[in-house]
Amino acid sequence: MARAEGLECHCLTVRYGQRHQAELEAAGRVARALGAADHRFADVDLRVFGGSALTAEIEVPKDREEEAMTADIPITYVPARNTIMLSLALGFAEVIGAESIWCGVNAVDYSGYPDCRPEFIAAFAELARLATKAGVEGRPMRIEAPLIHLQKHEIIRAGLDLGVDFGLTHSCYDPDDQGRACGRCDSCRIRRAAFHRLGLADPALAHLDA
Amino acid sequence: MARAEGLECHCLTVRYGQRHQAELEAAGRVARALGAADHRFADVDLRVFGGSALTAEIEVPKDREEEAMTADIPITYVPARNTIMLSLALGFAEVIGAESIWCGVNAVDYSGYPDCRPEFIAAFAELARLATKAGVEGRPMRIEAPLIHLQKHEIIRAGLDLGVDFGLTHSCYDPDDQGRACGRCDSCRIRRAAFHRLGLADPALAHLDA
Repeated sequence: MARAEGLECHCLTVRYGQRHQAELEAAGRVARALGAADHRFADVDLRVFGGSALTAEIEVPKDREEEAMTADIPITYVPARNTIMLSLALGFAEVIGAESIWCGVNAVDYSGYPDCRPEFIAAFAELARLATKAGVEGRPMRIEAPLIHLQKHEIIRAGLDLGVDFGLTHSCYDPDDQGRACGRCDSCRIRRAAFHRLGLADPALAHLDA
Repeated sequence: MARAEGLECHCLTVRYGQRHQAELEAAGRVARALGAADHRFADVDLRVFGGSALTAEIEVPKDREEEAMTADIPITYVPARNTIMLSLALGFAEVIGAESIWCGVNAVDYSGYPDCRPEFIAAFAELARLATKAGVEGRPMRIEAPLIHLQKHEIIRAGLDLGVDFGLTHSCYDPDDQGRACGRCDSCRIRRAAFHRLGLADPALAHLDA
């Protein structure tokens, strides 16, 4: 979406001690495919704190009912993750003189993460205004979260309209040793249902459907 | 100050690619001396972004006049550093179920850092309320910055009253290879002047006064 607005994109991927490399590799593929001007990987090891199935040795839930998936803050919640990632993006943006930070948080289909809500993004924008040289000098950083109010199938539709190859992307919490999606974690199930709603198959699950 | 209030303290030191290890070692000494319950080191490499004399290969200014020290945002400003460090503290605090985060930011004597101001701390507290499970559940994290309005000599006075051994502490931006303070960077000069104002010598500079 930022590229479609003609912006020069400097991508940031955060290695925070994820259980797997698959999403990091996918980020590189997608950045290259979409013509990013730059792509950096920042390292912060959140495993030192523990507390989440995405970083600690806690099992990722599989094959859950829909109500279980949406009821509570899930075990895959990484404490303060989006705050930490946006803070790193803010440092990067300030160094390169960027005008805006774009992130893909989404509030609708999966509401258990407190740091995916519009109020959180607005609070971060205010923090960024007060925290930075650019903000102090009257050029506050814009924080863009264009997916925040979209449902998952609307995100897929928007991506397809922009020519995104979803076969390059990765959403699974617990891929196999070849980096392929499991099809059974909450993230895979929600994504598959969204493709189905558009009458499409999820290309990331082609190896399971075969 | 937190210990004097009877709190159990879980310390966090962030290794962000500092030019030197001296402040990390000092943090360990101080945490042990004050009876911290726990002390963790989180790693995040801000050198991937560059942009500051404290992380990049830019020279630390020495022997500056007082007006030069306080006029502008200094080259030792690390973009978004306090935002990033507080975000990491927020993740740690959330995992261990802490009630408050204490940080030593100070707005008075050295006002060039935008992320040391009371408005910044207030904005972070609001972000923390919205970003976390505890905040969502009605138990927002308190962000304490008890030094924020104190002048440097008042901070030293408060520390001495609480029995702090300032010989264990470290403030220098550019210590020698034995970890000893240079006495000439802005941080050393401001600290020395604050000790002098109390009629005292800075124990961290004893090797230079000898």
